[in-house]
Parts: sequence; structure tokens; C-alpha cells
Amino acid sequence: MAQARVSPQPLRRADRSRQVADLLRHQIHAGAYGDELPGEAELATEFVVSRNIVREALAGLKAEGLIHRGPRTGTRVAQHKYDHGLDALRGLQETFDGYAEIRNEVRAAATVAAPPSVARRLGLAAGADVVFIERLRYLGDLPLSLDQTYLVPDIGMAVLAHPLEFRDVFPLIEQISGQRLGDATLALEAIPADPHAAALLQLPGGAALLMLERLTGLEDGRPVDLEYIRLRGDRVTMRGTLTRSDP
Amino acid sequence: MAQARVSPQPLRRADRSRQVADLLRHQIHAGAYGDELPGEAELATEFVVSRNIVREALAGLKAEGLIHRGPRTGTRVAQHKYDHGLDALRGLQETFDGYAEIRNEVRAAATVAAPPSVARRLGLAAGADVVFIERLRYLGDLPLSLDQTYLVPDIGMAVLAHPLEFRDVFPLIEQISGQRLGDATLALEAIPADPHAAALLQLPGGAALLMLERLTGLEDGRPVDLEYIRLRGDRVTMRGTLTRSDP
Repeated sequence: MAQARVSPQPLRRADRSRQVADLLRHQIHAGAYGDELPGEAELATEFVVSRNIVREALAGLKAEGLIHRGPRTGTRVAQHKYDHGLDALRGLQETFDGYAEIRNEVRAAATVAAPPSVARRLGLAAGADVVFIERLRYLGDLPLSLDQTYLVPDIGMAVLAHPLEFRDVFPLIEQISGQRLGDATLALEAIPADPHAAALLQLPGGAALLMLERLTGLEDGRPVDLEYIRLRGDRVTMRGTLTRSDP
Repeated sequence: MAQARVSPQPLRRADRSRQVADLLRHQIHAGAYGDELPGEAELATEFVVSRNIVREALAGLKAEGLIHRGPRTGTRVAQHKYDHGLDALRGLQETFDGYAEIRNEVRAAATVAAPPSVARRLGLAAGADVVFIERLRYLGDLPLSLDQTYLVPDIGMAVLAHPLEFRDVFPLIEQISGQRLGDATLALEAIPADPHAAALLQLPGGAALLMLERLTGLEDGRPVDLEYIRLRGDRVTMRGTLTRSDP
């Protein structure tokens, strides 16, 4: 096929640097470069663009916190992102089982009166007791997420009797209820970090967070666990598979 | 059950306002309040917290661009978010079919030499031609997403022969290939908007974006479409269902 442009629109410079940044982001996550990226000239050759465009793309990835750049040190990967599955319902400790340890700093754990919307979603009477747990979750020394969890009281009270520092709540719910978890509905959004959450997660204010709202039920369909999970945007990628539905 | 706190940790004020903000965000999306939120006093009663905590929660939602607040106008919903499904593979126009019209501003459409990582993922030889399309996608008058699409050349060249302003690429691929789409692998991240993407999407620089990377194949498994989609964080929620896998 000829190299001819088939459209009148040329690619603008900012578009091209975004294009390069997106491909580089993927390559970095895939570990294609290890800890250190090739030089600007080499990247310019790889992507068939000018060095200026490479420089602009790298500046963007630096602003995202993905890479460090220095005149002497070159371009280094600041941190590798962790994959979290969208294909199966798993807790954080279960996700990283075997290759990294999750540590939970339990910031709050209390029985409170359920706000109406929480009561409704957990199938409780308005004003009923609900167990609220807030955890700051670390992978090694790095804060990864800030989780707010509402549990139905019969299960929640029993969960509170267990140490939560190194355990996910999901297997505890299964152990206490004697049932497997069933389905969860989830909503994923990108939101800016409020100043307090940013400080806890060691991010600048306004940093992009992945916000996961998840309502999980037991196998018998009873909803038991409502969570609001703020994940550091620069640390976590959600991955999954979609299948085309019927026409 | 008694109202007794079962844990020594009290809830801190910033945690409580985040708690209220998360519940309000859900209520607003669910349409529980229509276009105008109740007054601070009423919300304080609903969530059993002080008015100061309500005020802090509302300030956070205002910073997210979810609500407008004014001394005379009260608290109004700035914009309703749109749901995008995580359960089936659908284009944007297909998602909103019947209740809103997607308009695509085609910013670039050209045959280019595939960067190595694009070639690899689309199963092409390095340096092979690939069709690149950049679209700014509007729902009504509102920019919703900025999409960069790489298509294998045999399908991509034929896609370019169609007007793209009001059509998704997915059904065009199916029409051209004579096959249904099969599976897509996707990665979802929260990233800050670079200045140029922010301007196109009518957002402040650094605003939180949902970044969706999606590699889609035909029914026979051949990968044909690699996309990098920036969705406005304040406009789109991804929704899906997860099922607990085997223990």
C-alpha cells in the first residue's frame, strides 16, 4: 500500500506528542524498557517523529509521575504500575498474593447509623447500624488506595473481631457467613484527589484517582459490602476483557 | 444492636466529609435529588453529621465539577454523568443509541507508518502502514472524549471511505470485514489531562481523565483496532458486574 495520506487533515504537533506518550505509557507498563528509557534520538527514530515531539511526550509522562528525567540521569521509570483485574471479584491481598504484601492501616472501624442511601443499598432499615471501616492500604511502603467500607451489622461486627492489618475483608466475609461471595456491581470513575485524601496517599492535591464504587453480595444475592475505593492513578491499572454482545 | 463504638478509632472530620461526598456523588448520579440538592441543614440531618462536614463535602464535589453552588441559587447539579458499560463491547454511539446523539469531529485521518508497539499489537510487520484516526467526540454540545484509533490497513482504508461524523467505527469494521467483533482487552487508568487534551475537552489542565486503552479483535481472533480513549472524568462513569471466581 502506498504511503499516501488519504485525508486532508495533517496531524498536529500536540496530537503527535500525545500519540507518542500513549504508546510509551503502554511500553513502560509492559516493561519493554526496564528501568531506563532509551535516549531522545533513539525514541525519535522508533516513533518516526522529531526529537521535539519526543521531548513533549516525555514531559507529559513526567507530569503524570510515571518517569523521572534529569540531564545527567537520563529518563528513568519512576514506578511500575500494578494491574488489578476487572474480570473476577478479588480483594487487593488476593490480587497480589504471592508477589507482594498488602498492609492495611485501619484508620477507622466503628458501628455507625447507616445514612439512608447506604441502608437502602445494603437492604437495611433507615438508621440501622452499619459497620464502617476506613483503611489506607500499602503495597510495600507505597500507599496504593484509601478504602471506605460499609458492612451489614451481623457480618461487620464479626469482621471487626479479626485483625485487619494483613487480611482482605472478602475472605473474612466468606468465612463468617459460611457462603461464597456472588456478584458485585461496580462503578469506575476518574476524580481529583481532595486535599486530605491526597495527603494520605502521598499525592499532590487534585491528582487523578481511580474511584471504584463496589457493592458486593453473597452467593444467595444478599448485598453485604458497599465500598468506596480511591486508587492512586499513577499506581494502578484496571485490566479486563470485553466480549461483543449480540447485535 | 447497641450504638456502641466497637473500635478505639474515632472518625476524623476530613474522613467524614469524604464519606458524605462519596454518598452524595452516588445519589446525584442516581438522580435522587433531580437538578437541585437539598439545603445544608437537610443534608446534615440525612447524613447525621454537622453542617460544617456537609459544607466540606459539597466543596469537594464542586471542585470535581459535579455541582454549582451560590448564595442565592443553592446547590445545583452541574451535569449528569453518562454511564458506559463494562459488561459488553460497544461503541459510544451504540451505547447512547436512542437517547442522545454522538457527533465526531474528525481531527486526523491518515495512513502512517506503524510505530513498532502498534505494529506488534496489531500483528503487522514493523513499519507497515496503519490507519490513524483522531476524533473529538461530543454528546450534544459537550465534548466527552478524545479518541486515537489505529486500524489494520485493509480495514482502515475502507473505514476512511465512510463519513465518520455520526458513526462508530465498530459497526463499520463489522460491515467491512463481514465478521462480528470478538473480544477486546482493555486497560483503564486515571491520568491528568495534558494541556492540549484539556483544551480540546474544555477542561482545566491536569483535570482527571479516564484513560481507556482497548485492543479489539474480530470473531476469528485477529486484532484489528487499537484505541487510546480519553474520557472526561466528570462526564463518564464506567459500570459493570464482577463475579467471584473459584477459590
